Amino acid sequence: MIASGASPVLPKIPGINARGVYTLSTLQSGIAIRAAVDHTPPRQAVLIGGGYIGLEMAENLILRGTQVTLVEKTPQVMNTLDPDMAGLLAEEIRKAGVTLYLEESLQGFELQGDEIRTVVTDRRTLPADLVIMGLGVRPNAGLAREAGIPVGETGGVKVNEGMETGMPGVWAAGNCTESLHLVSRRPVTIALGTIANKQGRVAGINIAGGQAVFPGVVGTAMVKVFDWEVARTGLQEREAEEAGLPFRSVKIEARTRAGYYPGAGKIHVKIVFNPENGRLLGGQIVGQEGAGKRIDVLATALHAGMTVEEMINLDLGYSPPFSPAWDPILIACRQAAGQV
Amino acid sequence: MIASGASPVLPKIPGINARGVYTLSTLQSGIAIRAAVDHTPPRQAVLIGGGYIGLEMAENLILRGTQVTLVEKTPQVMNTLDPDMAGLLAEEIRKAGVTLYLEESLQGFELQGDEIRTVVTDRRTLPADLVIMGLGVRPNAGLAREAGIPVGETGGVKVNEGMETGMPGVWAAGNCTESLHLVSRRPVTIALGTIANKQGRVAGINIAGGQAVFPGVVGTAMVKVFDWEVARTGLQEREAEEAGLPFRSVKIEARTRAGYYPGAGKIHVKIVFNPENGRLLGGQIVGQEGAGKRIDVLATALHAGMTVEEMINLDLGYSPPFSPAWDPILIACRQAAGQV
Repeated sequence: MIASGASPVLPKIPGINARGVYTLSTLQSGIAIRAAVDHTPPRQAVLIGGGYIGLEMAENLILRGTQVTLVEKTPQVMNTLDPDMAGLLAEEIRKAGVTLYLEESLQGFELQGDEIRTVVTDRRTLPADLVIMGLGVRPNAGLAREAGIPVGETGGVKVNEGMETGMPGVWAAGNCTESLHLVSRRPVTIALGTIANKQGRVAGINIAGGQAVFPGVVGTAMVKVFDWEVARTGLQEREAEEAGLPFRSVKIEARTRAGYYPGAGKIHVKIVFNPENGRLLGGQIVGQEGAGKRIDVLATALHAGMTVEEMINLDLGYSPPFSPAWDPILIACRQAAGQV
Repeated sequence: MIASGASPVLPKIPGINARGVYTLSTLQSGIAIRAAVDHTPPRQAVLIGGGYIGLEMAENLILRGTQVTLVEKTPQVMNTLDPDMAGLLAEEIRKAGVTLYLEESLQGFELQGDEIRTVVTDRRTLPADLVIMGLGVRPNAGLAREAGIPVGETGGVKVNEGMETGMPGVWAAGNCTESLHLVSRRPVTIALGTIANKQGRVAGINIAGGQAVFPGVVGTAMVKVFDWEVARTGLQEREAEEAGLPFRSVKIEARTRAGYYPGAGKIHVKIVFNPENGRLLGGQIVGQEGAGKRIDVLATALHAGMTVEEMINLDLGYSPPFSPAWDPILIACRQAAGQV
């Protein structure tokens, strides 16, 4: 059973091992960052990478009183969102006090002794007494590869529905493996605890002689950033294009609760769908309290292969403290169905 | 187009029209209760009926400092829940300060002049300066009946998928109509704004020459009572039995967020399923903040006709502020799948 996980992607730049430069991928690395912050509260933190790790650390360091700069080499944060939805989030992050530099890449570090002093980008030099590298992870497939076990183009260990590798009698599960994406029908590597847990359960049952199947994933992910809930599932526009699927999208703004109910927050819902057959392809949510977990309706509909037309009449829960009479998900589906 | 709504069920008891005795079914009746409470804060309110209206009014009157007694003739509140789930809710209502009398029925009122003074039950006499009758509603199908338009055994106007009545050219929508229950395949009348809205949209499109279909409902409903979120969908055990379906159920207790995350509240999930083919039949949730809207996953799965085995691997959203790695819905599905 191979459960070798994934490791943070790190550029080979002098200074990457300096004191004050961290990754956040294990419980130990989290404890180390917290101990460092508790010991000497950093004045200026620079976060490299605008994904989950960068965003979550931005929130927590701002709450601890640190000045935070986030550097991201692409034109947007959260590359699993479409640019328009990521733009809504970027605006809120900036309002919350984060200095956000997009389309800017890390060039190097300047040290004093073995301690970090500045981060050098292609645009400027940023003083830093704490740096966190959040450039994503890569499956630890080396052991499998050396053993002659097939590894996919994604870099993850290939497994069948039962989580068995290409070498009979050898199973794999978790962040080191590929999963089948149920919408694109292509293999993907998505390093999330939910998927790893489900895969581990299936592998364990089968190793013990049972019969379990892990059918695949739809790419659901969530993150909380300050007061904003961000969630996505299925294919974003770029992924739909890469999968060669016809796609169209709609985006709506609504409220998390009945408009007159206290605490009715904003919610933006974007839906990507196939305009030829109406099939839902994916969805994205950026909103306030109660917004994010609505992604589960879209995830479940993706598993079931539903069309946006079918989804209009989903009998979703309503009561003024929880939703408008038309749930925001349904409002988006209505708009989408009008374009099929 | 018949959109005549529904009217509160009221027993024919002397004193039912006394000053201080209210129903809550229209905006006007809500305004009237609020004006009365603002004018002379009631000391002792008696609520008749332990459904949504009774529970929501209990919360709001307690928050206004009124002593609240709730009288329900059946052995449980919320008859759309199974007794065990309703029991969890009853416990919380009592903790919040409501005096709850179950298996007790209204016998009459005592007035002073034209004002309510006491509520008489088969067990005791309760002083009351405010009484709210929450005994459910009945479709206003009289107009249709008099016109010779078919009315179902449920008391609601019969309509087809396009919301047309049995009289060609006459449509009906909202609380006066029947809906097809997609799990039991039987007609039901459920007086909820979500259903009325969806039906109205379909009727409107069709009256204007379009082609829209309202396939039916799965019986989703939610209510907030104090800090508790209550939700249900599909068939409860009694309904599964009435529909002649084999059923079994599981009940789990989990947390709304990762256990270590601040604000992780309790959530109880019950799932009713068909042990012969694994099909989900219904679900019920009683829990704290973030619990209730999880019902939407079950509602969507019911629309799609999913089995509990298929649901185990639903790729639902996870991040510690929103869910444990195994969402409580999935934990319940795992338990259920073990019994198929």
